[in-house]
Amino acid sequence: MAVVLMRGAGGAGHDGGATWIDCDPGAPALTVTDLGASRGDGIFETIGMHLGRLHHVDEHLERLVRSATALDLPTPDVEGIRAGVTQASATLIERCGDVPATALVRVTVTRGDAAAPGGGVCEYIHADVFPDPTTERHNGVAAITLNRGYARGVGLHAPWLLIGAKSLSYAVNMAALREAARRGAQEAIFVTSDDYVLEAPRSSVVALIDGVMVTPAVDAGLLPGTGQQAAFAVMSARGYKCIYQDIPRAILAQAQAVWLTDSAYLLRPVHTLDGKRVPLLKQLTAQLIEDMLALPNELAR
Amino acid sequence: MAVVLMRGAGGAGHDGGATWIDCDPGAPALTVTDLGASRGDGIFETIGMHLGRLHHVDEHLERLVRSATALDLPTPDVEGIRAGVTQASATLIERCGDVPATALVRVTVTRGDAAAPGGGVCEYIHADVFPDPTTERHNGVAAITLNRGYARGVGLHAPWLLIGAKSLSYAVNMAALREAARRGAQEAIFVTSDDYVLEAPRSSVVALIDGVMVTPAVDAGLLPGTGQQAAFAVMSARGYKCIYQDIPRAILAQAQAVWLTDSAYLLRPVHTLDGKRVPLLKQLTAQLIEDMLALPNELAR
Repeated sequence: MAVVLMRGAGGAGHDGGATWIDCDPGAPALTVTDLGASRGDGIFETIGMHLGRLHHVDEHLERLVRSATALDLPTPDVEGIRAGVTQASATLIERCGDVPATALVRVTVTRGDAAAPGGGVCEYIHADVFPDPTTERHNGVAAITLNRGYARGVGLHAPWLLIGAKSLSYAVNMAALREAARRGAQEAIFVTSDDYVLEAPRSSVVALIDGVMVTPAVDAGLLPGTGQQAAFAVMSARGYKCIYQDIPRAILAQAQAVWLTDSAYLLRPVHTLDGKRVPLLKQLTAQLIEDMLALPNELAR
Repeated sequence: MAVVLMRGAGGAGHDGGATWIDCDPGAPALTVTDLGASRGDGIFETIGMHLGRLHHVDEHLERLVRSATALDLPTPDVEGIRAGVTQASATLIERCGDVPATALVRVTVTRGDAAAPGGGVCEYIHADVFPDPTTERHNGVAAITLNRGYARGVGLHAPWLLIGAKSLSYAVNMAALREAARRGAQEAIFVTSDDYVLEAPRSSVVALIDGVMVTPAVDAGLLPGTGQQAAFAVMSARGYKCIYQDIPRAILAQAQAVWLTDSAYLLRPVHTLDGKRVPLLKQLTAQLIEDMLALPNELAR
């Protein structure tokens, strides 16, 4: 029931124009010399569609532009991509015959086809229904902390490490999730080599510490989270003080609650961290998710 | 004049079998949900074909197996891949109408199509002529050193960082090459955060230090180089002592010579490191390249 739209160089949507081509989702669409496929050399954003609303499209597109800058890619055609996101979500709804409860619209921009130099970037949008997130939102997940290998703040002086850019090079993120599974957990939380909390492979981390909502400062070396920003908005509205601050791993281990935030689940509590139970504030979590779902996001058509 | 062979899940070569399908190199071959394309979640090897000989196929296939282990991929079908490499090189020679002086045969294995769980890995082989490497081999390149962000040896206790695995997640490697270009150089040499030499984005580093050929030990946090091993073989044969040892950045800066080794160029001298001239041992370099070309590698058919 998926939707794939393409435009630009090298792929199935290649017509040299700005029009999105509706492609068969199961059919090959990328050349093997596409630099996204061959080198992980591209960027992406995953936009959540919840109860028929596309969440935080502006914020995702702004981050896409920042990722493009970090990777020296041409500035994305934001309005064209926004139109593609709208088209993809509308097409998905049409194909489903109804508005799915949860879906993800993923935008990808690769550096294009190495075998067609000068051909420009390759862009595609993939939209698909996401499995019911209710159980994980309610029951939470077990997480382990894993060393990301970088010292706190290393990206500030080494922009080629692409810290804070959402690139296609996610092999380490996927390996961390497999390591978590090996240890009986569902999620990993990366920490710096000097033991500061960073982020999860596909989520941001928010913790309730001494009654204050805390997420690590971006300068520590992580991706600014659109889900985290939405979580802070609703937490603030409920009277919580929300701050960006370094979180040593030992402090996270003693938090009153820990959540992972992302486009798919919005908010998932962590019930166990490195084998130790973390309080599950089920009622608060449910309220916050309700608030996040009610944020004034644009209706998908 | 390229050749693309595919087999396995999700791609244009999908027939469920072990046979390599000869695909149009310019046509789409991968789905957008292929995990190599969407997450850089796969592995590769690039085998050099020089004067009609495929160099170090066994060593490349052994390293592919080690990369698969690091990424928890199924053990590659080495004999099937070897047959594909032979088929791809033979087809390339046939299409060129003659044996190209230099060509590259790249083997890729991705985790397969996320939209077709259980479908198994996607494998493809891409063979193409490589531009004449003579000038770079003779004149050398300018290189800069760049912090890789990791402390020496971090991978030993954090296998999820995939250090020493040749994954498709090469965005940082490509960013380092762009940073080098920005600074007027052609190559980058990564160093650890504690200033030990690692490797270049697509090459290993060998330096002549006090009359001894030195390359950094793999444990420092790098990929064992097939080109580096070949270089050591011919250097040893010419009477040089060859050792694996940590190289502090300051020691590299004072080396009697520095080379980059890889499958495409075999050996390229570094003529300038961080803006400072490095001696160019042109005669020795030419002899070593001749020796490397003459190593007993299998004839491509």
